[in-house]
Amino acid sequence: MKPYAVGVDVGGTTVKIGIFRTSGDLLLKWEIVTNKKDGGRNILPDIADSIKSMLSNKGIGLEDIQGIGIGIPGAILNRSIVNRAVNLGWDVVPVKDQLEQLFDGKINVLVGNDANVAALGEMWQGGGKGYKDIVMVTLGTGVGGGIIINEQILDGTFGAAGEIGHMPVNPQETRVCGCGKKGHLEQYASATGIANTAKAVVASTKENTELKGMDSITAKDVFDAAKRGDKVALEIVDYTAEILGRGLAMVAAVVDPQAFVIGGGVSKAGPILTDAIQKYYREYAFHASEDTKFVLATLGNDAGIYGAVRMVL
Amino acid sequence: MKPYAVGVDVGGTTVKIGIFRTSGDLLLKWEIVTNKKDGGRNILPDIADSIKSMLSNKGIGLEDIQGIGIGIPGAILNRSIVNRAVNLGWDVVPVKDQLEQLFDGKINVLVGNDANVAALGEMWQGGGKGYKDIVMVTLGTGVGGGIIINEQILDGTFGAAGEIGHMPVNPQETRVCGCGKKGHLEQYASATGIANTAKAVVASTKENTELKGMDSITAKDVFDAAKRGDKVALEIVDYTAEILGRGLAMVAAVVDPQAFVIGGGVSKAGPILTDAIQKYYREYAFHASEDTKFVLATLGNDAGIYGAVRMVL
Repeated sequence: MKPYAVGVDVGGTTVKIGIFRTSGDLLLKWEIVTNKKDGGRNILPDIADSIKSMLSNKGIGLEDIQGIGIGIPGAILNRSIVNRAVNLGWDVVPVKDQLEQLFDGKINVLVGNDANVAALGEMWQGGGKGYKDIVMVTLGTGVGGGIIINEQILDGTFGAAGEIGHMPVNPQETRVCGCGKKGHLEQYASATGIANTAKAVVASTKENTELKGMDSITAKDVFDAAKRGDKVALEIVDYTAEILGRGLAMVAAVVDPQAFVIGGGVSKAGPILTDAIQKYYREYAFHASEDTKFVLATLGNDAGIYGAVRMVL
Repeated sequence: MKPYAVGVDVGGTTVKIGIFRTSGDLLLKWEIVTNKKDGGRNILPDIADSIKSMLSNKGIGLEDIQGIGIGIPGAILNRSIVNRAVNLGWDVVPVKDQLEQLFDGKINVLVGNDANVAALGEMWQGGGKGYKDIVMVTLGTGVGGGIIINEQILDGTFGAAGEIGHMPVNPQETRVCGCGKKGHLEQYASATGIANTAKAVVASTKENTELKGMDSITAKDVFDAAKRGDKVALEIVDYTAEILGRGLAMVAAVVDPQAFVIGGGVSKAGPILTDAIQKYYREYAFHASEDTKFVLATLGNDAGIYGAVRMVL
């Protein structure tokens, strides 16, 4: 094993890059802007230039790099090719080949889906450390997921394994999910979903609630009010937790992981949410899987670069 | 690789045993009675005696056996130890060690859960042949499942991976599943579940239906009536297919397999059921996974011995 490796996490706004010791320590990290002009054709050259100049700055030669792992917000085939990444303006892009060419064929590159790569990072050095089979759930603007089995990312046939935000949890739903179908988990458990639930509840409830006076209610408003004992807010939290706990019980009946790692902005609500999720999980889960561990993600926005590096080790 | 291997499928009534060429051909198969007396302590000695005498009959020496794979209706730890098999009267039984000792340590033994092993068999030589990532769904008295990823059984942390009969699909359910929880897939999609649905529908419908005159309605009665165009029976089939299609869409959002392999007695209903399942699956599934293949299991009761052998190859 060579002494260093590089992890890259490409987002729609910035690209995060980290240089790691292959033992797992993050040496340094930085960000560059994601240049989406011209169908995003400059993104990979920008990344290569930035890595080369940083390595040269630090006196690290390409021959000391074990590999580059890169996470992309899109479907990935064979750890190599991106099959559409809408946020980057990409259609089909052979990322592995192109990035390897940008390093004159001297460095091995592996490509993963960003949510899956973040799950791998959390398993390796984050909240899931010590486990080898985890399901990561990222509760943010949407609901992302990643499945790690035996320390490996589960990609799925169409790159859609771990898309647990798109499990159909409510066949009665009439509103449409971002993906075009109806009643998916993301419609209830994302920050947007919780805000939508709150709007609907506040519009129809006769109870007094501090959420009533607000111009626009966010998920954070709901959790803050719930922590102050607001009854309506507590009901919204309970409603959300029931759907999430039930969804994760479904996930456990399929892959039966050691632990669920919960991350994303919504998870910052803390135990008021996560304890409730776990309560409903135990209520719905098959008895053998009732004691699955629930842990919080710890790497935050760095999970992607950690997981990206882990792919090439 | 040695020329032969043995597959064993232990059920509550009979034990099926097969001798295979390691190329995959089944040479011969037979059954013995499952002796459940004395807490099932004679089951493994009976199996060993039966295999030894059959091999000796056929002039095959133990040195020509690559291994013995055995499927057990219970939770399995580390491909070795059974952690309760209620139908056999077993608590914790170190099956691998005990069976290897019965062959004087000359033969390697591996142990799997019966439903998972059947899934492996169908992937190897049955309806799932040519695929390496499948989910098998067995619609019988209950609903069983098995997940095969990269040609390997996914066991799960508590031996509960693939327990898709126990996905909570209906939080409004008041009746209790065989496992003690409520609203699980098995309560609707098993033969028993379909019969229960039929009873409830027939008791409340004002429509004319040939199911009305029957003493006790079976799942087969429902499908037969549906094939003759009975409107109420068709509604029951549609209700069942909706839940199953939705359940499999949940499964796909987790593991995104290449194919669903549908087996068990209920699957004999044929296209009237499977086409309807697939229709609802496409309606609910995340768009990337809409084109997952649906195939029928082909090995019937032999799936277990095929899969058991495959474990040791």
